[in-house]
Amino acid sequence: MTTAHLAFDETNDAIADRVRVMRSSAVRDLFSAATRADVISLSGGMPDVSLLPASALEAAMGAALRDERAIALQYGPTDGLASTRRVVCDLMRDIGVRVKPDQVLLTSGAQQALDLLAKTFINPSDIIIAEGPTYLGALQAFSAYQPDVRCIPFDEDGMRMDLLEAELKTIGKGNPRLKFCYTIPNFQNPGGVTMSMERRKRLLELSHEYGFFVVEDDPYGRLRYDGGHMVPLKALDSDVVYLGTVSKTFAPGLRTGWIVAPKTVLARINLVKQGTDLCGSAMNQVVVEHYFVDTPWERTLQGFVKVYRERRDAMLAALDEFFPPEASWTHPEGGFFVWVTLPPYFDTDSMLSEALEAGVTYVPGNSFFPDGKTGRNSMRINFSYETPEKIAEAIRRLAGAIQDRLDLYRAFIAAGAIKVPEEA
Amino acid sequence: MTTAHLAFDETNDAIADRVRVMRSSAVRDLFSAATRADVISLSGGMPDVSLLPASALEAAMGAALRDERAIALQYGPTDGLASTRRVVCDLMRDIGVRVKPDQVLLTSGAQQALDLLAKTFINPSDIIIAEGPTYLGALQAFSAYQPDVRCIPFDEDGMRMDLLEAELKTIGKGNPRLKFCYTIPNFQNPGGVTMSMERRKRLLELSHEYGFFVVEDDPYGRLRYDGGHMVPLKALDSDVVYLGTVSKTFAPGLRTGWIVAPKTVLARINLVKQGTDLCGSAMNQVVVEHYFVDTPWERTLQGFVKVYRERRDAMLAALDEFFPPEASWTHPEGGFFVWVTLPPYFDTDSMLSEALEAGVTYVPGNSFFPDGKTGRNSMRINFSYETPEKIAEAIRRLAGAIQDRLDLYRAFIAAGAIKVPEEA
Repeated sequence: MTTAHLAFDETNDAIADRVRVMRSSAVRDLFSAATRADVISLSGGMPDVSLLPASALEAAMGAALRDERAIALQYGPTDGLASTRRVVCDLMRDIGVRVKPDQVLLTSGAQQALDLLAKTFINPSDIIIAEGPTYLGALQAFSAYQPDVRCIPFDEDGMRMDLLEAELKTIGKGNPRLKFCYTIPNFQNPGGVTMSMERRKRLLELSHEYGFFVVEDDPYGRLRYDGGHMVPLKALDSDVVYLGTVSKTFAPGLRTGWIVAPKTVLARINLVKQGTDLCGSAMNQVVVEHYFVDTPWERTLQGFVKVYRERRDAMLAALDEFFPPEASWTHPEGGFFVWVTLPPYFDTDSMLSEALEAGVTYVPGNSFFPDGKTGRNSMRINFSYETPEKIAEAIRRLAGAIQDRLDLYRAFIAAGAIKVPEEA
Repeated sequence: MTTAHLAFDETNDAIADRVRVMRSSAVRDLFSAATRADVISLSGGMPDVSLLPASALEAAMGAALRDERAIALQYGPTDGLASTRRVVCDLMRDIGVRVKPDQVLLTSGAQQALDLLAKTFINPSDIIIAEGPTYLGALQAFSAYQPDVRCIPFDEDGMRMDLLEAELKTIGKGNPRLKFCYTIPNFQNPGGVTMSMERRKRLLELSHEYGFFVVEDDPYGRLRYDGGHMVPLKALDSDVVYLGTVSKTFAPGLRTGWIVAPKTVLARINLVKQGTDLCGSAMNQVVVEHYFVDTPWERTLQGFVKVYRERRDAMLAALDEFFPPEASWTHPEGGFFVWVTLPPYFDTDSMLSEALEAGVTYVPGNSFFPDGKTGRNSMRINFSYETPEKIAEAIRRLAGAIQDRLDLYRAFIAAGAIKVPEEA
């Protein structure tokens, strides 16, 4: 008898079109490599949770165990517990944004916020604007909804507004396919750069002129090591959709992020979220609420900032000491990452196995572009997770791998196998 | 100057097509009404978390606070902590399913599993088969991916295989649009009915003959009040995709569910999940793991079963006592729900405001059909959350509202405004 039995090695035939275009995250794939004891990982984006005092966690979890047990154990509202949303309002006020709890929706980390935004707004072929390179988790979240992502390069002052405006002119004013501009204005991931105030204002002007909304992703805003606080885009324009998270100020294991947006936008996202997860974890929301209410979290955060600053300084010093003159890199005032640029003919993607052999990992630059190809001559390196000594050693190893590659490329160039423009 | 400014009261223009077809959950909308102190809610689907001993929660959370703090606070694997997946394997073995941890993927409640399955497999217009009525959260999850959901009626032995086969004949063998059959074989939501062993076997035969896979959603399987354990579909056929959750055996606030499926299927779902939420809450996974390892959870579960059985018995007794002969209802051997059917001309959707006035809520039957129209002469009533006394009082109130409506319909029928077939 002939049957139409769906064997599961034929899953490929059954999957949806949106899955065929997905790529696995290089960062995720590298997690296993990074757990080898002899390898120093500069590829992750993890906070160092060992810096969190045990007493703070105990205090935060106490409420879930005692007074608010019935709430913590039960299903909650789709948009999150009102008491936790009120705490988010307090956190937002600290950075200059005044909102009410009904303008806040809690998500399972900011990653879920990216998924929900794309799910709510993106039809296939709709246009999203982003920095290029940009957060690869955002690219993964968006890609499920098959958008056309247009990447705008940055310099040390963030996304280049001249290039954005040129792109917008080709898209056209009021183009219904143009939905939003996704930006990480503070200590960008992966770039490490911060958008200047002049450019923030210009981006908002352009959003009104061309008819799109701005999504401001701000996971690192509170982790500033130099310079003064920058006013969030959301504080300048109430139409901005702001994404926050406790992953870097408290802990990623709580999976608590939020969207601050106009109520009409949140009503749509709430509807989409019902089918996606019914509700977030009330347990986690109670713990998060009490962390920010019952513990000296600002002092704890100052401790994080002090440690991460030392690690950033160790990385920048090691880059100065070990990296060849062909390399350049950004100088982040906060956050977790430095972005390294090598000559145009350099390929960091194929160099990764050599680096792993030398005992260090990073994320190749092409991971941060929607085509998976652009940016091969660059890389993201992380300084939040390892000690200053290990960071210095990792940079020394990485410099060795780069130097070997440069020697190889020089031989190719001498042999005419790689063409280098005169001015290079 | 003319601008294309996207005002947010114009959000409607910017949303994706998939959102235009979404309906808000009647259950969610009723949550606010149900919090009025004078109203007895039969509309929810919540376990009674007050039955969980405080000591069990303390024991479960102890590990997160002490030995496994670093893991609980950090990002985790996309498919969940291996130690928690091992515990899920133990739970599956208890019900006759032998699987390894690499055949388990943890989700944020079983609701996320439904979203991920649909996101991974459904193109617009693809066919899903389900019981009709079926779980409205599943309909919401699926609807975002715009499938064609075909509903098969059930009787007291579950989904009717004769009607399924007739539907499959119209769909055709090996139809590439036909993706999966979603079923809740134990104490179905909303029906309360359980699929017989004969029909379980027949469903699996048909899945191979026609080329679709079976999704077995089993949130209530452990909550059986009468009769013997039924072998899960997954134990009969390794191709089945099984969905589990701790929401009814431990607590919904932990948002921990799982998918048990062939590895090739999980690899696809894992890729989709990366962009959706990066990873679930390691904190919750550690707590869940230790609940099932460090506490006498089976004794606790026996306590749940005892209480829920009393509540079910109270509801069935009150239905017998108060409901008019025009009504019929299912007699669930477990789970949370009874399904009530009224004459074809009855409209429970428009009766809801009258019931609310009488101090009782339920979910109108049409909420459980994809068209939002079928099933208006039926309703779902829940017995897991209120005391036996309150349940009896709620059924008395509901019977009064139904009787008033029946009197009205009789007057319409007498006046010829409603036509009733001779045999009715």
